Amino acid sequence: MEKKKVYLDNSATTAVLPEVVEAMKPYFYDIYGNASSFHSFGRDAKKALDAARAKVASIINASSDEIIFTCGGTESDNMAIFGILKAYGKKGHVITTKIEHHAVLYSCRELEKQGHEVTYLEVDKNGVISPEDFKKAVKDNTLLVTIMHANNEVGSIQPIAEISAILKEINSSRKDKVYFHTDAVQTAGKIKLDVKKPGVDLLAISGHKFGAPKGVGALYVKKGTNIENIVFGGNQENSKRPGTENIPYIIGMAKALEIADAELANHNKHVLALREKLKKGILAQIPEIIINASADNAVANILSVSFHYIEGEALLLKLDMHGIAASSGSACATGEPSHVLAAMGADPIAAQGTVRFSFSFQNTFEEVDFVLSVLPKAVESLRAMSPVWQNKK
Amino acid sequence: MEKKKVYLDNSATTAVLPEVVEAMKPYFYDIYGNASSFHSFGRDAKKALDAARAKVASIINASSDEIIFTCGGTESDNMAIFGILKAYGKKGHVITTKIEHHAVLYSCRELEKQGHEVTYLEVDKNGVISPEDFKKAVKDNTLLVTIMHANNEVGSIQPIAEISAILKEINSSRKDKVYFHTDAVQTAGKIKLDVKKPGVDLLAISGHKFGAPKGVGALYVKKGTNIENIVFGGNQENSKRPGTENIPYIIGMAKALEIADAELANHNKHVLALREKLKKGILAQIPEIIINASADNAVANILSVSFHYIEGEALLLKLDMHGIAASSGSACATGEPSHVLAAMGADPIAAQGTVRFSFSFQNTFEEVDFVLSVLPKAVESLRAMSPVWQNKK
Repeated sequence: MEKKKVYLDNSATTAVLPEVVEAMKPYFYDIYGNASSFHSFGRDAKKALDAARAKVASIINASSDEIIFTCGGTESDNMAIFGILKAYGKKGHVITTKIEHHAVLYSCRELEKQGHEVTYLEVDKNGVISPEDFKKAVKDNTLLVTIMHANNEVGSIQPIAEISAILKEINSSRKDKVYFHTDAVQTAGKIKLDVKKPGVDLLAISGHKFGAPKGVGALYVKKGTNIENIVFGGNQENSKRPGTENIPYIIGMAKALEIADAELANHNKHVLALREKLKKGILAQIPEIIINASADNAVANILSVSFHYIEGEALLLKLDMHGIAASSGSACATGEPSHVLAAMGADPIAAQGTVRFSFSFQNTFEEVDFVLSVLPKAVESLRAMSPVWQNKK
Repeated sequence: MEKKKVYLDNSATTAVLPEVVEAMKPYFYDIYGNASSFHSFGRDAKKALDAARAKVASIINASSDEIIFTCGGTESDNMAIFGILKAYGKKGHVITTKIEHHAVLYSCRELEKQGHEVTYLEVDKNGVISPEDFKKAVKDNTLLVTIMHANNEVGSIQPIAEISAILKEINSSRKDKVYFHTDAVQTAGKIKLDVKKPGVDLLAISGHKFGAPKGVGALYVKKGTNIENIVFGGNQENSKRPGTENIPYIIGMAKALEIADAELANHNKHVLALREKLKKGILAQIPEIIINASADNAVANILSVSFHYIEGEALLLKLDMHGIAASSGSACATGEPSHVLAAMGADPIAAQGTVRFSFSFQNTFEEVDFVLSVLPKAVESLRAMSPVWQNKK
């Protein structure tokens, strides 16, 4: 009998959609030219690249010349952050949050090493920053704000629209514009993105979080926003991102985003139902747990649960033995204690017992049933080994 | 009737090999985990990643922990150049050549902006630097040498072994080691690379030049060589290159390199025969041409020809109308005059009439026959429009 496999780690990465693989195929063998080449092979590649760019742009309400394709969310975030500050050419102040993905967090630490000043905003117990705190944090020399759209560990959504409105007011009376970058890696394909509505200057997405392959992303750069290169070479991507364009993956990402966008409401309804079913099942069957972040203000596909008196990694191992894939938080930070839960004021011991379940539209209710048939026993058996738990009972 | 298509622009990019696409396939749908994840999906991806790393390492005589996977040659070059200088943490002197790919050339110009000093070595008429010139260029504060293995426009091979020997002697009596990076993008899969034989500290390769897709590369970093990050985020690739690993492409590149390595002698024999056939045909049928770079010291697959009294781009257009794809030089620098031919002392007018034909093992003798049936007439018809040519006749 083949072991049942249940993949609930879709915030780490997703399977590539069959339609995406089909869309990419011609660009491996047939239309394989270098998009910068002069001949028909190159022109065919360029045409496909232009079409993909127009598609991605239109889905987020941008124009084609505002889209830079990259090799992923990390590169997009780095390009935005260092690009803006290099273009300013002077030291300044940057505002971010304590719960950013490491692509932003470690870029900000690097900025500090370079002599910039960085404010890391606190979050509340639901993993959300306060617009008032944000407003107070802005200084005369603030040059950049980089605040994620939704958090990758707990799913909490940040008040992007409020921040944008505050910045609009601030920028109306300043010489040095405060640019606003958002890491939308966890929301692209999950929340309708409109770069003009919340009003951001830069926005990063990553294909492999919504059914495209790992290794492709994009950065939206609002017209008139000057970013300097972080990598140097050929004049691809409007001379902002050198290197032969990865046409198959770019085509694939455009296709995946198109599907996600068209099915947004359906997929969200489905993953929300899955998440709520799992949440209710856990609440009903397992005592002494904490659901992290408030469902009212979080992406639909993430459920973060802290199980008291156990180690998250031990529980993941147990689940994995049953073919269930979940995670302790970010795959990019395996083994480290969660800076997100710490910032949310979680008890450090409870935080260690945290597991993130993250859904895709491909998951089923049967899979949730299966998890609920395994999880309570797994938790119980681990707690049976905890002296603290034994003393409590 | 379908138009014949002859692709002779393999130095710009190659078609992906069918075996490579086959090797990648399982990693889109089935083994799609994030290699940093804890569960079986992640472990399976990690296992594949490790195997690909070991394969690439062994082919270039390195060990696995000396290989960093990147998104291409440009990133690899940037990582090497800025990585070494950031690790030194002080301003210094860098030696390169006038004929580097823009990934190196423009990185060096950025170094100058940052306050480093750069020497751009001259090349001879065959596009080769002199080891004596190199030796003289080394200064007390030289920290890095970045010299390409073979040039992308004319194919000339640089004296890497001699440079390495000179550096070995120099480094034996210095506190600050002079590191040696080589851009081997045009030689990986074409010349047997042994990182210990010529003795380099860093070596960049790009998958799409030898049958892997566009968007994957690697940087060899010799054990004990400290490079600082140019991009910040997760702890992938030994914390040197953050971002979820592009497993399918990495598997694909390892497979392509394995094939290229196994077939090296066969492929070289074949492309050399194609090149010589084309060269002889051109020399026999077309007067007033220059073959750029000496065949004795160049990669087997590149033939660069300057046709007097015509514009290279006009000729490319004519060839393209017959389905023949060639290039004027680097696809990464379309439209710009060639800095390589200029450095080789070529007459600027003649340089404008330059076309690069670059072969892969998939090209055939029939294709060369076809080119030879089209090219002389195309050149003649263009020259017929040149008053200079008409006056000469």
